[in-house]
Amino acid sequence: MRYLTAGESHGPALTAIVDGVPAGLKISEDQINSDLARRQSGYGRGGRQAIERDRVRVTSGVRFGRTIGSPVALTVANRDWENWTDRMAAFGDVPSDLMREVCPRPGHADLVGALKTNTDDCRNILERASARETAARVAAAGIAREFLAELGVEVFSYVASIGDVSLDEDDPMLAAPDYKPLDIELSDVRCPDEEATEAMKAAIDAAREAGESLGGTFRVVATGLLPGVGGYATAGERLTGRIGAALFSIPAIKGVEFGLGFQAARRPGSQVHDPIELDPKAGFTRTRNNAGGLEGGMTTGMPLIVTAAMKPIPTLMTPLSTVNLDTLEPEEASRERSDVCAVPACAVVAEAEVAIVLADAYLEKFGHDNMTDIKAAVKSYRQRLRTLSR
Amino acid sequence: MRYLTAGESHGPALTAIVDGVPAGLKISEDQINSDLARRQSGYGRGGRQAIERDRVRVTSGVRFGRTIGSPVALTVANRDWENWTDRMAAFGDVPSDLMREVCPRPGHADLVGALKTNTDDCRNILERASARETAARVAAAGIAREFLAELGVEVFSYVASIGDVSLDEDDPMLAAPDYKPLDIELSDVRCPDEEATEAMKAAIDAAREAGESLGGTFRVVATGLLPGVGGYATAGERLTGRIGAALFSIPAIKGVEFGLGFQAARRPGSQVHDPIELDPKAGFTRTRNNAGGLEGGMTTGMPLIVTAAMKPIPTLMTPLSTVNLDTLEPEEASRERSDVCAVPACAVVAEAEVAIVLADAYLEKFGHDNMTDIKAAVKSYRQRLRTLSR
Amino acid sequence: MRYLTAGESHGPALTAIVDGVPAGLKISEDQINSDLARRQSGYGRGGRQAIERDRVRVTSGVRFGRTIGSPVALTVANRDWENWTDRMAAFGDVPSDLMREVCPRPGHADLVGALKTNTDDCRNILERASARETAARVAAAGIAREFLAELGVEVFSYVASIGDVSLDEDDPMLAAPDYKPLDIELSDVRCPDEEATEAMKAAIDAAREAGESLGGTFRVVATGLLPGVGGYATAGERLTGRIGAALFSIPAIKGVEFGLGFQAARRPGSQVHDPIELDPKAGFTRTRNNAGGLEGGMTTGMPLIVTAAMKPIPTLMTPLSTVNLDTLEPEEASRERSDVCAVPACAVVAEAEVAIVLADAYLEKFGHDNMTDIKAAVKSYRQRLRTLSR
Amino acid sequence: MRYLTAGESHGPALTAIVDGVPAGLKISEDQINSDLARRQSGYGRGGRQAIERDRVRVTSGVRFGRTIGSPVALTVANRDWENWTDRMAAFGDVPSDLMREVCPRPGHADLVGALKTNTDDCRNILERASARETAARVAAAGIAREFLAELGVEVFSYVASIGDVSLDEDDPMLAAPDYKPLDIELSDVRCPDEEATEAMKAAIDAAREAGESLGGTFRVVATGLLPGVGGYATAGERLTGRIGAALFSIPAIKGVEFGLGFQAARRPGSQVHDPIELDPKAGFTRTRNNAGGLEGGMTTGMPLIVTAAMKPIPTLMTPLSTVNLDTLEPEEASRERSDVCAVPACAVVAEAEVAIVLADAYLEKFGHDNMTDIKAAVKSYRQRLRTLSR
Repeated sequence: MRYLTAGESHGPALTAIVDGVPAGLKISEDQINSDLARRQSGYGRGGRQAIERDRVRVTSGVRFGRTIGSPVALTVANRDWENWTDRMAAFGDVPSDLMREVCPRPGHADLVGALKTNTDDCRNILERASARETAARVAAAGIAREFLAELGVEVFSYVASIGDVSLDEDDPMLAAPDYKPLDIELSDVRCPDEEATEAMKAAIDAAREAGESLGGTFRVVATGLLPGVGGYATAGERLTGRIGAALFSIPAIKGVEFGLGFQAARRPGSQVHDPIELDPKAGFTRTRNNAGGLEGGMTTGMPLIVTAAMKPIPTLMTPLSTVNLDTLEPEEASRERSDVCAVPACAVVAEAEVAIVLADAYLEKFGHDNMTDIKAAVKSYRQRLRTLSR
Repeated sequence: MRYLTAGESHGPALTAIVDGVPAGLKISEDQINSDLARRQSGYGRGGRQAIERDRVRVTSGVRFGRTIGSPVALTVANRDWENWTDRMAAFGDVPSDLMREVCPRPGHADLVGALKTNTDDCRNILERASARETAARVAAAGIAREFLAELGVEVFSYVASIGDVSLDEDDPMLAAPDYKPLDIELSDVRCPDEEATEAMKAAIDAAREAGESLGGTFRVVATGLLPGVGGYATAGERLTGRIGAALFSIPAIKGVEFGLGFQAARRPGSQVHDPIELDPKAGFTRTRNNAGGLEGGMTTGMPLIVTAAMKPIPTLMTPLSTVNLDTLEPEEASRERSDVCAVPACAVVAEAEVAIVLADAYLEKFGHDNMTDIKAAVKSYRQRLRTLSR
Repeated sequence: MRYLTAGESHGPALTAIVDGVPAGLKISEDQINSDLARRQSGYGRGGRQAIERDRVRVTSGVRFGRTIGSPVALTVANRDWENWTDRMAAFGDVPSDLMREVCPRPGHADLVGALKTNTDDCRNILERASARETAARVAAAGIAREFLAELGVEVFSYVASIGDVSLDEDDPMLAAPDYKPLDIELSDVRCPDEEATEAMKAAIDAAREAGESLGGTFRVVATGLLPGVGGYATAGERLTGRIGAALFSIPAIKGVEFGLGFQAARRPGSQVHDPIELDPKAGFTRTRNNAGGLEGGMTTGMPLIVTAAMKPIPTLMTPLSTVNLDTLEPEEASRERSDVCAVPACAVVAEAEVAIVLADAYLEKFGHDNMTDIKAAVKSYRQRLRTLSR
Repeated sequence: MRYLTAGESHGPALTAIVDGVPAGLKISEDQINSDLARRQSGYGRGGRQAIERDRVRVTSGVRFGRTIGSPVALTVANRDWENWTDRMAAFGDVPSDLMREVCPRPGHADLVGALKTNTDDCRNILERASARETAARVAAAGIAREFLAELGVEVFSYVASIGDVSLDEDDPMLAAPDYKPLDIELSDVRCPDEEATEAMKAAIDAAREAGESLGGTFRVVATGLLPGVGGYATAGERLTGRIGAALFSIPAIKGVEFGLGFQAARRPGSQVHDPIELDPKAGFTRTRNNAGGLEGGMTTGMPLIVTAAMKPIPTLMTPLSTVNLDTLEPEEASRERSDVCAVPACAVVAEAEVAIVLADAYLEKFGHDNMTDIKAAVKSYRQRLRTLSR
């Protein structure tokens, strides 16, 4: 399973195509819309999120609520498009009154993108490098999530810090899998603790007043995984690399950790690695999960826990200095949008990315023709593990 | 440029094939051997590194010291092979006295790999999941490094912490590019500061005495990069994702940061993003480099700085508990090797991975037929950037 | 440059996403629509082509008629969709009066697809395995064609035979590049000869009366190519393989030949290979073009000429026998559409496939950021070839 | 399963790495050597084949005769290397008496490769573009063949014509699967008919005397295939395209046909498509096999039959005219080797390519971890097909 997206921030629509989708998988439009809504939520978002209220439209690959085995095309219309039809028209002349974007924003793709593509209008870059594109990823990942859910795998996320306010967690590797998704979604910042939620909101309020923006960290958790998904034999099959790539492909992500992450680099070995046990019911298991569910590039069967750091939104109300590409004189950067903090939303995008990688790795391991055959293969594998038969 | 490796830890040899190599590139055997030696060095290594002293053999793709445009095959013999010819024979009967590995080591691929491949001998896994495989990557990356060097790009690394001992750096994003490779290589732990070096060595000594192992962190730095390498238009072309994948494909890496990394998540936006300036000589530049050289998935032209966390070596002299796969009873884990700390070596592997990704992205941007055409394209691009001509 | 398509034959629309598109490329909606019209034309088509009159809609990646460097999304609406909203609905219940397709048609994907995806309705297969999908490919290839045209490469096709009626060509390798696209498009069967056109039409009429269908052969020709595009160093880079794959990915293609093709297997070597000459103006050239423009997996600079064989349309008015999947009794195959011959249209699809492969190979060789840099690289390469400078 | 090869014709060795190999697969060195021998056989070969007698060396991925799940590295030494150590040295100075190849041979990669890689010595090209490289492919495919054999799939080939002498076959689609591999291998030209064999040998003798070379056609046949391998949903998964690419990646292949191939373009539909039957024992089957075992890009379960055309060997004893790259004057082409006809050998290479594609498609469908799980998945699929259970 892999996806490709297209679409500009103020174009008519975002489009995603997902291929490698097994047949016979139940798909719910509502479920995808609910993920899209979660991506738009979060304290600290600016006006644009209110305009949009994204809704997915599935134009292929699904019939009567089930996949048929062909690629799934999904579109998410840009509700603001009607105000941009002139400025973002695919064809026709450049409007005589077009305001080009000539003041690239530090922290964005604007400048380098303009140099690379040789344009005099940074809008050509920022329309695509925009976080808006991630809505298409979330829609695409809806397919992966349904697939995983059918095999007992749930993927969720929560915010662990915003700016310098952190959720207090004794041992996140133990705590994380037990958070309740409902508690998370009820929090305005998608954090499972009320007190931390309030402190994070206060930090966002303070940042807004200061004309600032804030980043933060979040964790993505996947439970219900079978051991042995992914691979150790070549660099390319390791799930660590594949999930790492997926998370770092999200704009604004500057750090990724599996399990203890950087903490593992500080502790001695005996306090890092997870002893192996044989549980009469669960089979091989671990007494702790410092690895965050991956060893040797493969799932261990313990929950997958990955933490990511999002940098603050680059567009500031008190902009940083830049250079005007027309005059070549110093100037203040443009202001394209006004979110103060998008960490809760970014975590939802990260769920999407993790879900797609996991679904892809499952399909690799268990075949990808149809749900009947896949479930049979999963069952047979479970059976083999349980009986240790060879 | 991409590589594929093969080879077991105690098999006859490691093999790498690198394809997509431009013709006319000067290659130095000595340079590759020197990288291999750096990968074997470092205070805290056990006995095996002494045995090996790796030497590359190039069996194709290079003629009279220059690439000819065909794939480059490199082998690194395993000097210990002669002691393992029976136990690791490709063909012939299983020796009657073969000791299978049945006590999977926590923190290694042993258990999950055995479940996945359905074997009763974890040696089949650990021979490949071993860090030994990374020697092939370092050899392969020799090609990438020569290529980058010819275009003015240097890639180096240094150790920033071992266990809880850290190199003291005010602003690593400013300091890192200025470290002298020689200072780094003269340090027993590949750390550019003498005092820190001594403290790290003491930590390693203490760990050895305690039957422990240690991880740590290191940074990979690339200087001399052109802006606009990589891409923002699709998830897959972003250098963040590609370098992230490459680093997380190295066994034992549990965390990766670009630029400020997790620190960026704590600061307000104005203290994170790098203001843009126009320098009469250098062209567009930044007043600082918190981004670590990447914006929007592309090089900014500032030094690339990426930090990674390596977990402690899983094999411990006081092993963790595991389960014997034959008896299904609890037991102590096997001891396969005896390094206490391999962080300095791992940093060299990370250099290799970064070099390959960068070389690949350069080739994508500038073509990959031969060095003459590539240099012409680079020159022409530089010229366009300098004159801002469109 | 690569594309991904989605869409069923009677769903709302076909969608294609093309990524790897350089910035600054002029795109014409009309040009794409004209290719779509050519794909729908041809004597021997049934009623459906009249219904449709395909029009492309570009929803991303193009602004004011030029690509901006982001992926291009194209949709082609299915005009018949309004009659199929119930039967092909993405969501909602299965209509109580749904007629499943249970009589798989020999020659189509129906049976094997149903077995593979485990469905009881062959419509799930035939909606996607339909030739209708190729409209999305033609739309996608519009981008590739504009790119090639800007570099002086033209791709066209003509029908060489329908059933047992062949265009009479002394030496097609010499004749093909000189046919006039206008003559071809003015022929009802896209054949550059009037007499042959009439004979082919008569064959189609006879087949229609007999309740039969006809296949045929066509050639795709690309002129204006530079030498050295593609590669010989690995199996995967050879253009022969890549174009072969592209053509054989078109439904109904059963044979592909480069240059003389099977004829080359019959002649002695001296009558096959193309002597090399140095032309004062054109540089290295050949006295003939039996190779069809490719040697060693690379363009020679001579016209690319590839011939393909299309099998007759499987749906027959006098259907072949099959098995009813519900009753498991023998039955006549379903009749999904009523074209008698689609060879002229298939040739247009083949043009599309060839154009995409060639564009991709050019981008690989000359970079893919923007048209300015690409043209500079092409110019510099031409210059090097002309002067034989090293 | 995929392979990468490296190695020059007169370098020390050819190397192949095969990855994606399931664990627990029995591998026989003898079997691979026997395939290598078959690749070297055939009436019409020159002196070099006698020198070489290729033997594979497996240096990784196999232990005690079984794959362990890691990549398999295979090398085939070039026995002639000792005579070329100076001229083909990887490192060191260019020998003062080096004879560069400056007269590119028509029909080879020599000229275009030299232009592309910007070399003044065509040897840099011809060493890699040489047919010698295919020995590495045959070795690599040994892994695929063993895998297929274990699942009941046999792949073989036979020569159908050499020059203008053809094996007389009434209906090759029916006859081909029944030829006996032994009969084929006992023929000096790998043709299952004695009379045809003699006529082909006579044609080769005549060509040799005339200073000519000959091409020919051959068929690759795979029996024992399950239906539904491959895919119809996207262009890239169709086996037609994948096998087409694989065959056209072999040097000298100029035409490929599936089933009836070009013949299918001449017949009316009712004489092309294969009626479907339900056989009490075999399940769904066909009354004939004009499709050559593929419909909609998937296996039908009938034998796969693909025919390919090989052009004559370009190196002629009475060489064609070319241009001397030093003097730029017309000259006769170089003579690198002296085979008259290599069609029997090329067919063995084609077997290899087909085997790898089929193995890859099986692994995609049934998972690729280990033979136990794969066989369980195959059995379960067979069972589902047999019972038509959903």
